[in-house]
Amino acid sequence: MSATIIDGKAIAANIREDVAQQAAKLAEKGWQPKLVSLSVGDVAAAELYVRNQQRTAESAGVEFEARNYPAETSLEQLTGIIQGLNADPRVNGIIIQRPLPDHIPVKTFQKLVHPLKDVEGMHPASIGNIVYNDLALGPCTAVAAVEILKTLPIDIEGLNVTVIGHSEIVGKPIAFLLMGLGATVTVCHHMTRSVAMHSRAADAVFVAVGKPGLVTGEMLKPGCAVIDIGINRVDGKTVGDADYDSCKDVAGWITPVPGGVGPVTVAMLMSNAVHATEMQMNHYRDAFARTDF
Amino acid sequence: MSATIIDGKAIAANIREDVAQQAAKLAEKGWQPKLVSLSVGDVAAAELYVRNQQRTAESAGVEFEARNYPAETSLEQLTGIIQGLNADPRVNGIIIQRPLPDHIPVKTFQKLVHPLKDVEGMHPASIGNIVYNDLALGPCTAVAAVEILKTLPIDIEGLNVTVIGHSEIVGKPIAFLLMGLGATVTVCHHMTRSVAMHSRAADAVFVAVGKPGLVTGEMLKPGCAVIDIGINRVDGKTVGDADYDSCKDVAGWITPVPGGVGPVTVAMLMSNAVHATEMQMNHYRDAFARTDF
Repeated sequence: MSATIIDGKAIAANIREDVAQQAAKLAEKGWQPKLVSLSVGDVAAAELYVRNQQRTAESAGVEFEARNYPAETSLEQLTGIIQGLNADPRVNGIIIQRPLPDHIPVKTFQKLVHPLKDVEGMHPASIGNIVYNDLALGPCTAVAAVEILKTLPIDIEGLNVTVIGHSEIVGKPIAFLLMGLGATVTVCHHMTRSVAMHSRAADAVFVAVGKPGLVTGEMLKPGCAVIDIGINRVDGKTVGDADYDSCKDVAGWITPVPGGVGPVTVAMLMSNAVHATEMQMNHYRDAFARTDF
Repeated sequence: MSATIIDGKAIAANIREDVAQQAAKLAEKGWQPKLVSLSVGDVAAAELYVRNQQRTAESAGVEFEARNYPAETSLEQLTGIIQGLNADPRVNGIIIQRPLPDHIPVKTFQKLVHPLKDVEGMHPASIGNIVYNDLALGPCTAVAAVEILKTLPIDIEGLNVTVIGHSEIVGKPIAFLLMGLGATVTVCHHMTRSVAMHSRAADAVFVAVGKPGLVTGEMLKPGCAVIDIGINRVDGKTVGDADYDSCKDVAGWITPVPGGVGPVTVAMLMSNAVHATEMQMNHYRDAFARTDF
């Protein structure tokens, strides 16, 4: 048996189409969605990613402005810049490109972005809302991975899912999104005694660790779905965390790397941009409506 | 074999002692911790709980003011009251007693409490911080349940834990907290195909559903720890979610109901009160220190 290869690009294209329609509607109302990307210092590492976001934004009808600041920009200066963008009604989403220079504490910096403009879904309030099952702006990668599972002919309610990797912005949010959909979720990580014991019992396996070949075919239940969120460079090639060849012989569905979760993640960023714009539009309207107190 | 009965009252007493010392230190600095409890309408249901909080607060050196507002108080009026308490430096924590009248949406109301005064740990930002493993003010019941596990002679790293119940303020935060401590966590709920399959594999079982007798001895791995968060009234008696008699013959440790998680939860509320006061004190100091920009 050989797994069905999940076409992330096709899923992303569908999402972009919906986003483009919503973006057009918002633009008609005077609320053209706009993202601002901030990178600090040498951006070589992020450049390719930013250009990719830019292209996707254009094809999704979302304005995109990429800003780069010199490495020596202070946290105070960047704080002022973020506060300015938070206050600017023409900017609907703020993306903070990583890596950042050592003198910029990533989390502190991300927390400065107003939750209504947190299109990357990194703010603690955004994460907390997932737990409350009220998905305002979710972390793009986690939401993308779960969206991919939703496209499969599987009933997620009661599904046994094992998530390998418990990072704050990928593994944990995936777990809570899946719980919200009714799955029974087990989260494994580097301290787990036997990952295979948990992965073999799972109808769907999500892996987001950053270790090529971490998940092999012997660790899977035949016919399961494998959603591979890892992105690793091996001998100049990009590969995921799953050993693709052995896994695709056992799994029922598997995401390729590249071409799986990646493109869907960028599409979700645009979906968040539109959602954020809508929330900001309503927020302004409420502000006017509530002159009663 | 018969399980060791976990003495929640003794654990709570230790926490209260620490809290009392910290509260005294804060009082010396002019920051006497103070909680304000808000109840709306008929409080019969909450009254016993409030009186219990009041007693615990006194024994922990925390000031406690219980306010009750008439059932017809509007959301707008209550919003104003919360905003006033948020702004008042003499108030360090706000407790919103449930149940609330139907015209007061609980979540909306809880979100009004400033995260720094959210001693119940209900604000999305508080929940999100748990995901970020940065426990500012955690939901009291969840933190209490995990604190109890910490008192046992068990290494939590790599421990297989099954959490039954995935509510936003108990089950899910417990899962997050345990992941942060290195446990491998599975979360079960009403849509889980076989809870027993997961509970039997667990070294520790947390149950927070609200169904008496949900967990029986046959569902447990011998020697495991059972932390029972359920509170149910059966024939005028208070019981948990675990079938105490059958479980205590199989488990290695078990929390009684009452006298287990309950008292520790109220103690954690006081611990949050002290922690919140500290954060507010530092927040004010930073505000003065940062005249540089």
